[in-house]
Amino acid sequence: MTTAAQLWTRLETLPRPTLGELFSAAREGGEGADEPGGADRVAMLSGRIELEEGGILFDWSKTHLDRAVVAGFEELAEAMDLAGMRTKLFGGEVVNPTEGRAADHATLRGTGEGAKVEEAMALIDRMGMLVEAIHQGALGEIEHLIHIGIGGSALGPALGVDALGRDLSYCDVHVVSNIDGVALEAAFAKCDPAKTLIAVASKTFTTIETMTNAASALKWLGDNGVSDPGGRVIALTANPEGAVEWGVDETRILPFQESVGGRYSIWSSIGFPIAMAVGMDDFRAMLAGAKAVDEHFRDTDGAANLVLRAAFADLYYTRVRGCQTRAVFAYDERLGLFPDYLQQLEMESNGKRVTAEMQPVDGPTAPITWGGVGTDAQHAVFQLLHQGTHLVPVDFIASIAPGDELDPAHHRILLMNCFAQGAALMAGKQGEDPARNYPGDRPSATILCDDLDAAALGALIAFHEHRVFASAVLMGINPFDQFGVELGKQMAKAIEQGGEEFDASTEALLDAAGLG
Amino acid sequence: MTTAAQLWTRLETLPRPTLGELFSAAREGGEGADEPGGADRVAMLSGRIELEEGGILFDWSKTHLDRAVVAGFEELAEAMDLAGMRTKLFGGEVVNPTEGRAADHATLRGTGEGAKVEEAMALIDRMGMLVEAIHQGALGEIEHLIHIGIGGSALGPALGVDALGRDLSYCDVHVVSNIDGVALEAAFAKCDPAKTLIAVASKTFTTIETMTNAASALKWLGDNGVSDPGGRVIALTANPEGAVEWGVDETRILPFQESVGGRYSIWSSIGFPIAMAVGMDDFRAMLAGAKAVDEHFRDTDGAANLVLRAAFADLYYTRVRGCQTRAVFAYDERLGLFPDYLQQLEMESNGKRVTAEMQPVDGPTAPITWGGVGTDAQHAVFQLLHQGTHLVPVDFIASIAPGDELDPAHHRILLMNCFAQGAALMAGKQGEDPARNYPGDRPSATILCDDLDAAALGALIAFHEHRVFASAVLMGINPFDQFGVELGKQMAKAIEQGGEEFDASTEALLDAAGLG
Repeated sequence: MTTAAQLWTRLETLPRPTLGELFSAAREGGEGADEPGGADRVAMLSGRIELEEGGILFDWSKTHLDRAVVAGFEELAEAMDLAGMRTKLFGGEVVNPTEGRAADHATLRGTGEGAKVEEAMALIDRMGMLVEAIHQGALGEIEHLIHIGIGGSALGPALGVDALGRDLSYCDVHVVSNIDGVALEAAFAKCDPAKTLIAVASKTFTTIETMTNAASALKWLGDNGVSDPGGRVIALTANPEGAVEWGVDETRILPFQESVGGRYSIWSSIGFPIAMAVGMDDFRAMLAGAKAVDEHFRDTDGAANLVLRAAFADLYYTRVRGCQTRAVFAYDERLGLFPDYLQQLEMESNGKRVTAEMQPVDGPTAPITWGGVGTDAQHAVFQLLHQGTHLVPVDFIASIAPGDELDPAHHRILLMNCFAQGAALMAGKQGEDPARNYPGDRPSATILCDDLDAAALGALIAFHEHRVFASAVLMGINPFDQFGVELGKQMAKAIEQGGEEFDASTEALLDAAGLG
Repeated sequence: MTTAAQLWTRLETLPRPTLGELFSAAREGGEGADEPGGADRVAMLSGRIELEEGGILFDWSKTHLDRAVVAGFEELAEAMDLAGMRTKLFGGEVVNPTEGRAADHATLRGTGEGAKVEEAMALIDRMGMLVEAIHQGALGEIEHLIHIGIGGSALGPALGVDALGRDLSYCDVHVVSNIDGVALEAAFAKCDPAKTLIAVASKTFTTIETMTNAASALKWLGDNGVSDPGGRVIALTANPEGAVEWGVDETRILPFQESVGGRYSIWSSIGFPIAMAVGMDDFRAMLAGAKAVDEHFRDTDGAANLVLRAAFADLYYTRVRGCQTRAVFAYDERLGLFPDYLQQLEMESNGKRVTAEMQPVDGPTAPITWGGVGTDAQHAVFQLLHQGTHLVPVDFIASIAPGDELDPAHHRILLMNCFAQGAALMAGKQGEDPARNYPGDRPSATILCDDLDAAALGALIAFHEHRVFASAVLMGINPFDQFGVELGKQMAKAIEQGGEEFDASTEALLDAAGLG
């Protein structure tokens, strides 16, 4: 059997037709003669995932994937036993060897093994009961929720509320993550303490930012006439004992599994603020959308698997074409936080330098994922995409149904701009004036939802979770640990405790700030 | 004289000591013997820019700049006539040859040629009079300002209001940029139409997003009982005739100069919403802070010029060490939009592929500028910075004085984390477990403000404007045009008009969205 190293070498030496060549009609004879062009190419590299209502189109035709590249990656997937790893993932087996854990986020969507799924469903039901009780007034009149959490305990809730909670909602949610007190003060300014609930979200219930912010939030409640601030706290954690110790009543603790990673926890009780804002029905619809993607990813082989195909393209650009980044532009104001969410998901999962077998990796790992919202980004960063020197593969995300009720011109112009950018990046343009030349041949993929509802959001997130997982398997790394964040924490603690000497620059900074 | 190409070759072949080696005490004899280590190194590569009150520390010692690298770049600056270009910039001469224009943003701070500065000051005074008249009730009771603009007409106002307008403010400002109607609807939901002013910011007064949003905003006012919606519009533009034609009364048009680029326009009437929120005194303090940096950049030679030194490091990493990105982390919630602002400033300015002489560039141009806010980013992307395979030079920005009035622990922990990250990136750590190894030797710079007030914000922005300009000069490119955004606009228009055929993928997407 061909080794992974050999397959990578072969991928690197494959011909590199331009997008224009790939789109032109099938060539006659010779290399690439069976390569379909035009609409056949689009058919080959597009596909839909169907949801309960509507679905999502994934068009990867404007990337440099061709039959040969795809075939190479399909062999790589076999060599790296992607199918086996996928079975382990959904079977609840250990896929995070450094921490000896499974990665059970899919069980919260109802995908996976019997007992684990039952446990997960019970946790969701428990959250649902509390959410509905609060909506019905069990904790008094609640209009505001200050959700305190950081990283995975903040980005998912913030994204979910921003994407789905604009039109109603049951209560307004303020996500506070930063240790900088300015963040918490901004939330205070918008809330009536008498009608405010505090959610404290921390997997370990020890995160310094979260516990510091939680203490200050309780003090604020007390200082503003709330007689039992502790009674206003909901704990979202995988360490319920820690929450009890901190003083939260068991009835207001919503646990989740130790085997659900922080950046994969939006489906768990960490999603509580989303359910508080949009209701449990929408929250469950989000889970169902994710489940549809689980099933597509689990049950489809080779490049017909849309998730896998995306991972092939990602790895092709990162490892074969030398791209250190990839960009995501959501042409939808409601997905303004989606690039940030993906940034964490991909960079924290796959920003690694050793394989799951503890060997140095044999190529670059996760690209730097960056992006923004369209059309804003066209007026900010697209200059570099069109005329800069760095090749950046781009994903566009949009929704056919509008999210607004203004003049339909708004949404029509939005979509036309989205499609025009993909076309322009690929086509380029040669003119007489070098400053107005566009090289073109720049790749993009387009993800087009019929409608950006809760199910579609769930599906989009699950698609990217599995895309990151597939990339990790193909690179042979463990996407589920994150030891890279420990050293900074240790050094911050050492500074706090004093006595240790740091480099001369750090010492000078500490002195300048009066912390020396 | 040595040519730029020869100097780049020399820079590429210089020895590459690690940060640890550079920080260790001066080596005995041989190469690098005169290289200062420890505190001497910090003294060599740190400096302050003083403002009227307080100042800002710039510490570049944790980068790979050493005497030899700095000397190489100083020679490059001479070869590229940086001093001459700088004189042209501040002298109001043409520095944007493709558009035959000067770049006069510094005149708005009072830096530059007599007549141009006088004209600029008159424009600022005019804006000041209108702002103060509105604050005094000339347009009735105004509590809300919906500021409509995109790109440079949005990012500066949004940053300024977010950074400086949290504690007061005279009126609350909602910046709307996206053509997606969801953005405008979100602003409507927070404003009382009877007390709302609309600012329409567009250099050309033809930007499709802005004009579409402006029309919908006027309709909303009219639909909600405002008898003269047009009377509520303030136009911020370099095309006052266009604004008159659109129906804005001349008394409510605040013009700015054609020679001020969109991404350099925060100092002009585009800054109107900042002045509306925080008052003209703070707006003028922002200009004064920028002027202090203008003078430092104009009057300091070689690497003692802190702006130039930063540009040297940027180019070193981009062109010599192959970094496709650089990251900026503001350890201050108030600077949450600063990375986005810099992203536009740098990528739109220097994301180019031809020189000012219309020749292909001889190396990579602007890196992809990305980042976020600390401590949040530590829980999202720092994994990759510490243990990923891509080298990313990092800037940290922080303020010694806190922005909040909560328990001082918040701000202390914030700063300790900031300094700890820089220390950890540089030091790394070797352990027995490969998954817990950190290679270290990863560079960072730290910008430490005494206090993040209006003057400091102005200084930070001006520092980066000139840093981008200096990089452009050293690469021989024109940072002041942006033709790369035109092709996408043309293609969007072609789609709108119909009749043209695009690639098969774009055609399929248009069909799917019902726009075919």
